[in-house]
Amino acid sequence: MMHNHPQDSGTHYNASTDRMPRTTLFFSVHDMVGALDECLRALKRASVSMTRIESRPSKSVDPGYDFFVDVDAHTTELVQRVIEEVKKVKVVRDVRFVGNVEESAVVNEHAVPWFPRKVSDLDTFAEKVLEMGEELSSDHPGAKDPVYRRRRYDIVQKAKEYRTGQPLPRIDYTPEEKETWRQVYTRLREMYPKYACREFLHVFPLLEQNCGYGPDSIPQIEDISRFLKDCTGFTLRPVMGLLTPRDFLNSLAFRVFHSTQYIRHHSDPYYTPEPDCCHELMGHVPLFADPNFAELAQEIGLASLGASDEDIEKLATIFWFTAEFGLCREGGDVRAFGAGLLSSFGELEYALTEKPEKRTFDPSQAAVQKYPITQYQPVYFVADSFRDATSKLREFNSMMRRPFQVRYNPYTQSVEVLDTKDKVQHFARTIRNEMQLLASALEQL
Amino acid sequence: MMHNHPQDSGTHYNASTDRMPRTTLFFSVHDMVGALDECLRALKRASVSMTRIESRPSKSVDPGYDFFVDVDAHTTELVQRVIEEVKKVKVVRDVRFVGNVEESAVVNEHAVPWFPRKVSDLDTFAEKVLEMGEELSSDHPGAKDPVYRRRRYDIVQKAKEYRTGQPLPRIDYTPEEKETWRQVYTRLREMYPKYACREFLHVFPLLEQNCGYGPDSIPQIEDISRFLKDCTGFTLRPVMGLLTPRDFLNSLAFRVFHSTQYIRHHSDPYYTPEPDCCHELMGHVPLFADPNFAELAQEIGLASLGASDEDIEKLATIFWFTAEFGLCREGGDVRAFGAGLLSSFGELEYALTEKPEKRTFDPSQAAVQKYPITQYQPVYFVADSFRDATSKLREFNSMMRRPFQVRYNPYTQSVEVLDTKDKVQHFARTIRNEMQLLASALEQL
Amino acid sequence: MMHNHPQDSGTHYNASTDRMPRTTLFFSVHDMVGALDECLRALKRASVSMTRIESRPSKSVDPGYDFFVDVDAHTTELVQRVIEEVKKVKVVRDVRFVGNVEESAVVNEHAVPWFPRKVSDLDTFAEKVLEMGEELSSDHPGAKDPVYRRRRYDIVQKAKEYRTGQPLPRIDYTPEEKETWRQVYTRLREMYPKYACREFLHVFPLLEQNCGYGPDSIPQIEDISRFLKDCTGFTLRPVMGLLTPRDFLNSLAFRVFHSTQYIRHHSDPYYTPEPDCCHELMGHVPLFADPNFAELAQEIGLASLGASDEDIEKLATIFWFTAEFGLCREGGDVRAFGAGLLSSFGELEYALTEKPEKRTFDPSQAAVQKYPITQYQPVYFVADSFRDATSKLREFNSMMRRPFQVRYNPYTQSVEVLDTKDKVQHFARTIRNEMQLLASALEQL
Amino acid sequence: MMHNHPQDSGTHYNASTDRMPRTTLFFSVHDMVGALDECLRALKRASVSMTRIESRPSKSVDPGYDFFVDVDAHTTELVQRVIEEVKKVKVVRDVRFVGNVEESAVVNEHAVPWFPRKVSDLDTFAEKVLEMGEELSSDHPGAKDPVYRRRRYDIVQKAKEYRTGQPLPRIDYTPEEKETWRQVYTRLREMYPKYACREFLHVFPLLEQNCGYGPDSIPQIEDISRFLKDCTGFTLRPVMGLLTPRDFLNSLAFRVFHSTQYIRHHSDPYYTPEPDCCHELMGHVPLFADPNFAELAQEIGLASLGASDEDIEKLATIFWFTAEFGLCREGGDVRAFGAGLLSSFGELEYALTEKPEKRTFDPSQAAVQKYPITQYQPVYFVADSFRDATSKLREFNSMMRRPFQVRYNPYTQSVEVLDTKDKVQHFARTIRNEMQLLASALEQL
Repeated sequence: MMHNHPQDSGTHYNASTDRMPRTTLFFSVHDMVGALDECLRALKRASVSMTRIESRPSKSVDPGYDFFVDVDAHTTELVQRVIEEVKKVKVVRDVRFVGNVEESAVVNEHAVPWFPRKVSDLDTFAEKVLEMGEELSSDHPGAKDPVYRRRRYDIVQKAKEYRTGQPLPRIDYTPEEKETWRQVYTRLREMYPKYACREFLHVFPLLEQNCGYGPDSIPQIEDISRFLKDCTGFTLRPVMGLLTPRDFLNSLAFRVFHSTQYIRHHSDPYYTPEPDCCHELMGHVPLFADPNFAELAQEIGLASLGASDEDIEKLATIFWFTAEFGLCREGGDVRAFGAGLLSSFGELEYALTEKPEKRTFDPSQAAVQKYPITQYQPVYFVADSFRDATSKLREFNSMMRRPFQVRYNPYTQSVEVLDTKDKVQHFARTIRNEMQLLASALEQL
Repeated sequence: MMHNHPQDSGTHYNASTDRMPRTTLFFSVHDMVGALDECLRALKRASVSMTRIESRPSKSVDPGYDFFVDVDAHTTELVQRVIEEVKKVKVVRDVRFVGNVEESAVVNEHAVPWFPRKVSDLDTFAEKVLEMGEELSSDHPGAKDPVYRRRRYDIVQKAKEYRTGQPLPRIDYTPEEKETWRQVYTRLREMYPKYACREFLHVFPLLEQNCGYGPDSIPQIEDISRFLKDCTGFTLRPVMGLLTPRDFLNSLAFRVFHSTQYIRHHSDPYYTPEPDCCHELMGHVPLFADPNFAELAQEIGLASLGASDEDIEKLATIFWFTAEFGLCREGGDVRAFGAGLLSSFGELEYALTEKPEKRTFDPSQAAVQKYPITQYQPVYFVADSFRDATSKLREFNSMMRRPFQVRYNPYTQSVEVLDTKDKVQHFARTIRNEMQLLASALEQL
Repeated sequence: MMHNHPQDSGTHYNASTDRMPRTTLFFSVHDMVGALDECLRALKRASVSMTRIESRPSKSVDPGYDFFVDVDAHTTELVQRVIEEVKKVKVVRDVRFVGNVEESAVVNEHAVPWFPRKVSDLDTFAEKVLEMGEELSSDHPGAKDPVYRRRRYDIVQKAKEYRTGQPLPRIDYTPEEKETWRQVYTRLREMYPKYACREFLHVFPLLEQNCGYGPDSIPQIEDISRFLKDCTGFTLRPVMGLLTPRDFLNSLAFRVFHSTQYIRHHSDPYYTPEPDCCHELMGHVPLFADPNFAELAQEIGLASLGASDEDIEKLATIFWFTAEFGLCREGGDVRAFGAGLLSSFGELEYALTEKPEKRTFDPSQAAVQKYPITQYQPVYFVADSFRDATSKLREFNSMMRRPFQVRYNPYTQSVEVLDTKDKVQHFARTIRNEMQLLASALEQL
Repeated sequence: MMHNHPQDSGTHYNASTDRMPRTTLFFSVHDMVGALDECLRALKRASVSMTRIESRPSKSVDPGYDFFVDVDAHTTELVQRVIEEVKKVKVVRDVRFVGNVEESAVVNEHAVPWFPRKVSDLDTFAEKVLEMGEELSSDHPGAKDPVYRRRRYDIVQKAKEYRTGQPLPRIDYTPEEKETWRQVYTRLREMYPKYACREFLHVFPLLEQNCGYGPDSIPQIEDISRFLKDCTGFTLRPVMGLLTPRDFLNSLAFRVFHSTQYIRHHSDPYYTPEPDCCHELMGHVPLFADPNFAELAQEIGLASLGASDEDIEKLATIFWFTAEFGLCREGGDVRAFGAGLLSSFGELEYALTEKPEKRTFDPSQAAVQKYPITQYQPVYFVADSFRDATSKLREFNSMMRRPFQVRYNPYTQSVEVLDTKDKVQHFARTIRNEMQLLASALEQL
């Protein structure tokens, strides 16, 4: 049984300690003589320990510089102090921050919720996991197994420490863990030819040939991530447990998927109350190698950047009815593409019977459809194709009327807000060049 | 004095041994039952040692798979055997290879010269360096210094062994090397405010703050590469020495710049007959952080993919008159942006006097302009801006009438040939989506 | 009370005589030596009287010629004979015809219903009017008034004889007719400021200044048509009575609106069972001067070209709920823009009360909404704006999955089917040029 | 021998009388209560006779109205009075005028030269003809023939009186005139198959079939204009004689070509010092039926709107080396497409010999090439194709750096200056819609 991954009613962070592990501060400055040095001096004056100071050509002030500063500040007060020092510098613009500080504690200059602008901003999600980051809920089959809990703790520490750019953690799985995997793998693998969608079946053998998929070993996310990068640019990141829906969806904008590395408790290989590596690697990973699915997932991600809480809930529900429990039409047939289905024998079989209701995928309906998280779904949505679903989703997103448009730059793995004439002009030139290329390609077809 | 980097009359490869270090074989297969396994069996039958076998969803056959196989074959005959076995598999299409085999030895199915399709294909360039890969020419100031030669040899071995995806080699520079750097750095740094273009001056302080630029230490290309990735997506790769113009330009299509890591001989810090890290890091690196320059460089690179030998020569000459010796207008002023100038005090000063001839940059003229490689340039071309130069270059390239169009996919770091209806349709959809985004952004401006 | 203009259940043509007034034959030939002459000889051989033979550079065969031939053939047999002769010519392609022949009588080579390709094709609609072309139904207030019937007959004869390119008929209205107009005009004019939408109110004074609108005279459609041409390119054509929904909608693709010229019976100036000049000139004309409304109307028209009968019905219903009975939001207010409302005091007032149901305009709902044609509407649809309605309509149309796409060429006033590589290439070049222009305009903004 | 049509050094208007025949005044007003009436009152207050007052929804002020007023003002003073009255109205914006007043006499608010915005603005050119409007120069073969002069005078009066929207004048040619035509026609017609370009030969038979071309009668421009409208949207207008290069080129932006209707003197059928109907109808007309040539001609026209005097001269020279004396490549062959060649046996033959120099068409070279106007050309430019020439021309035009971009709206036959965010947004939406259509058409190809 799948747990609702992206969507969650509450937002009780797993604050097992009262320290504030990391806060990231951003600001921009105009390119003036001495501006860079002055900023560094201001940061120094704050006398707070900083673990990273990066300066870059600005993506919003032209010409200007952007600063990214990780503050190792244990209290809101310390963060406040840094912000105040920085704001004293005249040329500074657009100070923002993110972290485990209550946002309300610091005056937020912007009405729109914070969102990551560059892929390394995802590092700030590392410790912001909902329940079950380091603890287990009482109904977890491993809740009373101290060995399982210790093992799980050790694995999530690696996720906690992981930073963008590092090689992904490799786990040396135990024989017991491999046996659990073997049972899940073997049974699901048998079912796929009958139930899984075409795109899933096209990719699966490649995972066996290239990424160590098979009954005898649990694949390593580093190997998978490299493979996915080649296919669609998607990459994996380790995660401690459940992220907030906002953080989880935001990362999709960067074609980044957060994957757990621990495995369910060996006492019941066919059940898990939380996403584990069986769910991620069997259910989610294969389709991230498909260009059209990758586009669909990123589209949800891009729409979630800076979205209102209500819109985040809608998008998370759409994710639920596509990436988790989506069905699709294939000729006269219906097949599964949702990871919640493709990692659960029981529901995979059930979903494709006559029992549940099946509706044609329509994002405006799916977005507000109620659903249970601890039992089989009574309603599924059936997409015509990933491309069609993406096109409908795009239309749906355009109704959200977020007051700005974003564009992803895959070269720099950063998100650009199209809010100045400069950026729109640059974008128009890009399209002009592409249109030129398209016309030439058409001539030569 | 700068050596002509990309362009070189001869093509005497540095074949110090008669072994054939690595050949890479590519082929595609239709997605049919058993096709993947059959291919693997065929490769096995060839009984040749293979150091890498990768399969991916195909980017040219839909639905299909692409194979990338590194053959550790010491003779042409062995490579032939592999190719023959592979061609026996019915569903196989489009067999290509690249390596130190004489291309004529194997029947090449394609009229267009081979070119890299994915970033890891650049690995095949590693050992294909022109003169001075592991040897030094007699006029090199270090030619008779066995310690220098040993040191240089050790450094280029790291480049030789480097493969895509690995961290870039870090060199522990000696005090003597640092002293050479210090002298070069100090003197150039002083000159920049007066001679370098605006974009160069905007970026340089960031290199000091973020990448260890300074008089006291030689920056590491790993740190620089990460910084550039954030700015424009450009990355660095280590290189043994001079690549062929074709290989060098091809890599620019992937926003990859090959950088040497050794430094000139300490006996004459102000002279080097070959590109060294002073030239690369002081001259080239800063502008790769500028989005408009990055676009210009990539545009040259994309035009070079599969280009005829004559067109490669023209593009290399354009590279010479822009990235190496380019000047640009800035208000009423003229400034330098070419690396050959920005890493040479003498010519930097000379170029901006009245002595040399200065023409407005026009790619069709620049492409055929003769130039000396061992003395100051008699003619320079002055660009209005990087953007303007790129626009003119694009127009020039469209005249080349290469029988296909290519598009770079920065997500997968691969090059797509727009030669099927499928690909053109997909591209059209992409532009449609972007146009939708642009229209929305304009509404909200 | 408005009659349902575009939509009508039956299709009993007004065939008052058994003659077949006009049939138009189209065919294309390849450009080969003698091809043109051979075609003319074939037409001659058929010994049928022809009132027009036009040859043009072909818009579908490249290089080739298109022929347009009006056959004055009184029986199906004669038309058949011409078609057979033409088909004997080897280079002939793509023979189509339109007229009052039963289509089934001649083998139609194409699965898609015939549709006009050039503006002069609309001439073929002239005599294809539904009931009340020359006759009046018994419930018409003028049915028993022989003078009214004679007058009405004289006016529609001018519509019957009108051909593309001629000046529109001017009617010398009688004092009685002018008095009817005066009563309608005066009362409606008073109501507009309170009920009509912003765009309507913006244009109305211009009609008074430029086209003779006023209580004292009935405006001439020639004057109005010239005015509309300047504003949006819309033009008027006289019509005998109700066209089939297909013909009526098809003409909107050319930005042509069919307007009656006779006026309701003087006995009841506030009632008419059929569209008359009060309805057309007061209700419809003003918004055709608005660029956004013009786009909406043309979009319906373009979607109707070659559409299936079911789709025609849907589009006619959308026309009903927009151009005839549409409401729109204006700040917090709701206003009328439909001609059925703006030419009827009673319903105009009623529609903007709380009584009827008001739904947000959604083409997929509006397309299938049932409606009465002889009483006030129980349901109205409220558009956010013409632009928003057009955007939604475009999305709706894309679902229709007509097997071809059409594009209107306003230079030649013809419709182009984008069904060959040549045409798509040309279109791509056009967009490329526009994109270049847009990028330049953005730079200069 | 051809006279230089568009280009002329001097600008001595043919002011045979000192009256000022017509001045057109334009202004825009914001849409405010009473604004329209106030403007009309202001015009009335000026007590000047006005022959036309048109008001339209504004194309520059949104929401607003545009006024077009023809002032029958005989002196600059009267025009001034009208302008002053109009300027007193508060909501009035953007007052411009055109006519035979010295522009300097009235303060011109705009730095850019006046240019027509709507097709009816071309009416203002009617009397602004250079030499030989109503008079003949002494070297004209008909200069001393009073009958010829009288006939010529009668014909140009019709052109003088012609206004947009009217049917084009039909001339009842005399037997003598027809004989001149017969001689010219017969001889040229024989030469075409050997010398004229493919597009010309494709269209010519259609002119014979549809427009009365043949040895026995002189075709009427009304018939030709209707034919061209169907082919490319080009139309003809009668003209008294030579227009200024600016006026002549400006009209091409509207796809309007000014054609004389008189014929050369019968004494020498093979010579004329000025363009006559032989030159227009034989030389120019056929290619205006070709879509690619039509685009080329319009592109020159659009570039000329509001261009500086120097740029007008360049564009006129480009017109000279294309539309008048252009050659083009056809396979290995070279053919003529310029009207100056295709209406002159002598030069047509000469141009395709080895004698004259032939250069590949390059607009930047052609624009500044000197040429004689009273003898055969020593240099011709050879285009690869109309499409290629247009593409190069577009690139050349983009260098002109006119401070605004214009776009032609063929629906309203008006020119739009893309100088506000509103207009650019609207244009972006248009391109988005087209891109959507293109992507759909590509899917269905």
